[in-house]
Amino acid sequence: MSSLAVSEDKESKYKKIGGRALTSKIIHDEVPATCHPLGSKNKLVFATGLLTGSGASSADRYSIGAKSPLTGGIKESNAGGISGLALGKLGVRALVFENIRDDFKIVHLSTSGVKFDDAEPILGKDLSEAATWLREKYGKHVAVWLIGVAGEQKMNLSAIAGQDKDGHPTRYNGRGGLGAVAGSKGIKAIVLDTSGVGKNRPEDRDEFKAALKEYHNWLMEAPATSKVFPELGTASLVESTNSLGALPTRNFSIGTMEDYKNISGETLRKTLLERGGASTPTHACMPGCIIRCSNVFGDEEGNYVTGPMEYENIGLLGSNLDISDLDEIAELNRLCNEYGIDTIETGGALGVLMAQNVISFGDAEGAIAALKEIKEGKPLGRIIGSGAELVGKIYGEPHVPTAKGQTMPAYDPRAIKGLGVTYATSPQGADHTAGQTIRAQLDHHSPEGQVEASRGAQTANTIWDNLGMCMFSAGAVQGRFDRIGDLVTAYIGEKVTGEDIINSAKETLKIEHAFNKKAGFTKADDKLADYFYEEENKASNTVFDVSQEELETVGVDRDDL
Amino acid sequence: MSSLAVSEDKESKYKKIGGRALTSKIIHDEVPATCHPLGSKNKLVFATGLLTGSGASSADRYSIGAKSPLTGGIKESNAGGISGLALGKLGVRALVFENIRDDFKIVHLSTSGVKFDDAEPILGKDLSEAATWLREKYGKHVAVWLIGVAGEQKMNLSAIAGQDKDGHPTRYNGRGGLGAVAGSKGIKAIVLDTSGVGKNRPEDRDEFKAALKEYHNWLMEAPATSKVFPELGTASLVESTNSLGALPTRNFSIGTMEDYKNISGETLRKTLLERGGASTPTHACMPGCIIRCSNVFGDEEGNYVTGPMEYENIGLLGSNLDISDLDEIAELNRLCNEYGIDTIETGGALGVLMAQNVISFGDAEGAIAALKEIKEGKPLGRIIGSGAELVGKIYGEPHVPTAKGQTMPAYDPRAIKGLGVTYATSPQGADHTAGQTIRAQLDHHSPEGQVEASRGAQTANTIWDNLGMCMFSAGAVQGRFDRIGDLVTAYIGEKVTGEDIINSAKETLKIEHAFNKKAGFTKADDKLADYFYEEENKASNTVFDVSQEELETVGVDRDDL
Repeated sequence: MSSLAVSEDKESKYKKIGGRALTSKIIHDEVPATCHPLGSKNKLVFATGLLTGSGASSADRYSIGAKSPLTGGIKESNAGGISGLALGKLGVRALVFENIRDDFKIVHLSTSGVKFDDAEPILGKDLSEAATWLREKYGKHVAVWLIGVAGEQKMNLSAIAGQDKDGHPTRYNGRGGLGAVAGSKGIKAIVLDTSGVGKNRPEDRDEFKAALKEYHNWLMEAPATSKVFPELGTASLVESTNSLGALPTRNFSIGTMEDYKNISGETLRKTLLERGGASTPTHACMPGCIIRCSNVFGDEEGNYVTGPMEYENIGLLGSNLDISDLDEIAELNRLCNEYGIDTIETGGALGVLMAQNVISFGDAEGAIAALKEIKEGKPLGRIIGSGAELVGKIYGEPHVPTAKGQTMPAYDPRAIKGLGVTYATSPQGADHTAGQTIRAQLDHHSPEGQVEASRGAQTANTIWDNLGMCMFSAGAVQGRFDRIGDLVTAYIGEKVTGEDIINSAKETLKIEHAFNKKAGFTKADDKLADYFYEEENKASNTVFDVSQEELETVGVDRDDL
Repeated sequence: MSSLAVSEDKESKYKKIGGRALTSKIIHDEVPATCHPLGSKNKLVFATGLLTGSGASSADRYSIGAKSPLTGGIKESNAGGISGLALGKLGVRALVFENIRDDFKIVHLSTSGVKFDDAEPILGKDLSEAATWLREKYGKHVAVWLIGVAGEQKMNLSAIAGQDKDGHPTRYNGRGGLGAVAGSKGIKAIVLDTSGVGKNRPEDRDEFKAALKEYHNWLMEAPATSKVFPELGTASLVESTNSLGALPTRNFSIGTMEDYKNISGETLRKTLLERGGASTPTHACMPGCIIRCSNVFGDEEGNYVTGPMEYENIGLLGSNLDISDLDEIAELNRLCNEYGIDTIETGGALGVLMAQNVISFGDAEGAIAALKEIKEGKPLGRIIGSGAELVGKIYGEPHVPTAKGQTMPAYDPRAIKGLGVTYATSPQGADHTAGQTIRAQLDHHSPEGQVEASRGAQTANTIWDNLGMCMFSAGAVQGRFDRIGDLVTAYIGEKVTGEDIINSAKETLKIEHAFNKKAGFTKADDKLADYFYEEENKASNTVFDVSQEELETVGVDRDDL
């Protein structure tokens, strides 16, 4: 029987931490590091960021944490949308699920407390259908989290989906197989009913208002947040990574794609504008977000197909599979959303299958057919569902773009070496949101300075995860943490300085590494697959050549652990 | 391009070591511990034991070593039959294969040297057919090693098969997926042609003869080697493990099987004697072996079906799958032999699939059909081929009877706790031949004394592996190492004392742990799956309760490493 703990104790050790700091602290303190991730001793923690629900733009994100069945280490996965916001509105800072159960329940949270309903009617359904059913049953105003058929089957690539502001269950806590952990605990869905809950009020309204205004101004002034992302979304990266030789193509064998223009942010925008109807090239996943990097992809008749079509989805489900047709990529993206699976891990798994010629590169039809086998848990579906690392082991394929068992996002580590450092050394496994260096001012092809860049980015990304703030605020906020501290202080009524914010992020990384160390990780895990060191990416003419000694100063065996 | 190194340098650092000591030394010294096991940096080493080919009974065994794709650690797998003997006759102490290649070759060794022939005609064939083809092409006098369809496909449970004295390719280096390493190096078969090679002569014939006589007398006096094994084979263990509650049943969920009498050594012997024809309840895998624990299983018409039907095969492919019909078990055994796969790992993988209801417990037909999917590499075949640990990960099943990624042989570690210690702490992963404690004089249900028993057994088993001696000699030879030292000294012409033999085994274990440590193993790997600690084996009324602190004094993090 899974149980629910609602922590509201402001005097507790958790009072000044939120988001990832909170999930990782609970996992570190309460989960035995060597336990089976799908067994009774693992815990699944949902936590709001420090600013979630405050009204600050792009800061309604939340964290889900657990021991990951994909990496075997600690995991935090972070998303936007409205579900975390609803949790915050309910005054819940962390939901902690313990133990396991065999049947599936819908967990209903409201001001009346918690109840568990039978999930039978939505088992085996596509996520869009299940979400519609939930909103019909519980009211259109509720927010939900839910897992799909993959999570029910405890597949490694299964995710937890939240809702965007239009009700689509397409905001993903994608990484690390957390949907499988939810599945093991019998959690099919969580319904958050905020009826009768008033607006969150900052503890110090005047100070909050002042700091908020400043913060919003920064967002509106920064080029990325005010112009590039609202126009082109994250797909704007296709052009830049392709020119760096970092666009993963054909199972990360090379970093450019001949037809990259077909899948670029510009083409995507043009297509969506032409199509109209449900399509829109800019869309806010969280109410009031200034950045609006998201989009909605519709077909030629104007019908809704899927959303969002992000850079990572296009890179992993597109170029990585040698698929350059946006409609084909959208169909793969749609299936991922319907089954509740991580697009990155799915693209990684399909890429390895293509390297083994189980499906041909470029064969979108084959990829779509294979993906559909996930729904009924057929053997090929199970294989894909286990993630790229295991697909490699199942087929004896050494070219597997993973680190700590998790598929790399859409940046070849030979061409953006700072991300290679992040992949190799982050406690989270390969994950761009754990230490994104693409905007660092250095030569991405050179090994010089990458360790410093990744180290800084890993701290910065943890800061956003703790605050509940979108990483796209980085350009606007970086270096202005004292004022963000003021914003937090005014909101929660506890003094939080800029230094506190930075130190909390560093402490979070430290306990994550400590957990992983207890779980059995060593410096041998702080590396990339052999082929990134040995086989040149012909687009960038580089191999990954940041030295192991340098990597080990960042990873699990670093001196301060 | 794989290459062949023939080491005959008697002055080398390898001069007083053989078998596992030699393979592990070469792997430890020459293979980067973190390399991909199927990549170019792994090596595959075949080495004869110190006494292989000397004429000593039960001592023609040999070792194959590599970094294992199944465990990720160092691996040595040991077998009898005639192939190691032939390598010894050719004067080769170790064959070392480096690098990888995409096509398959037959490696032909004779007094004329080495040649590489095209393996195309035997690719995709059953092992019996391939072995017949090889003996037709190269002569009936040759000995062979070969891999099957599983090794060609680089599956984790693929083995390397040698020949028994009747030419059947049924002597298995089964554990650790070494067939996949051979496959990655393009080695389909190795043909050993000893034409023109004289009998091996000991350096000191008189002393050798005297020591040999004594050794053979010990074998003929000891009850296990002189009576139990020749009569009932290893299947004699069914009765004793069942009475201990240690016979793995229904995916290691309980340690007794209702119908255990149907699969006991007594029933097997009676069946084979009644059937006659090809059947025989006792059979020597190596020429001149006094123990003759092997057997040949024929059908009711007297036709050859498979061999040998050993205890591990009966336990893993029988009781573990709730199959109690010897003919059904024999058919599963036959398929394993034809595809070149490890019976233990196969039974483990099928057991986990049955726990997940992909196949029903007891459904031999379903298991046979599933196994056949290995041949063409269909998805379910690939899943089984990846081994039990990965099947568990693919299906999200926490009840997986593995340690360090390798399936446990047929002894529930809750009921024979010394073997539990071996499973948890051996550098080889779960393996009874890495530290067999079943004959230790203690209460197998108690945690007391198990660490000492396992530690002693791990050293003893390494001694047999180094000498090329069958572990079934243990009862006869244990404690008489000085005289075995005389036997070795007289054979190789280098002074080897009993103490040297023991120290070499300890040194071997040490470098194996050291390799594993570099490969990333920690004390977190020196444990069994959670459920062995948490869920009682109702047959023995025990859980595994040897303390982690004690385990860590034996495993990879022990003090002397």
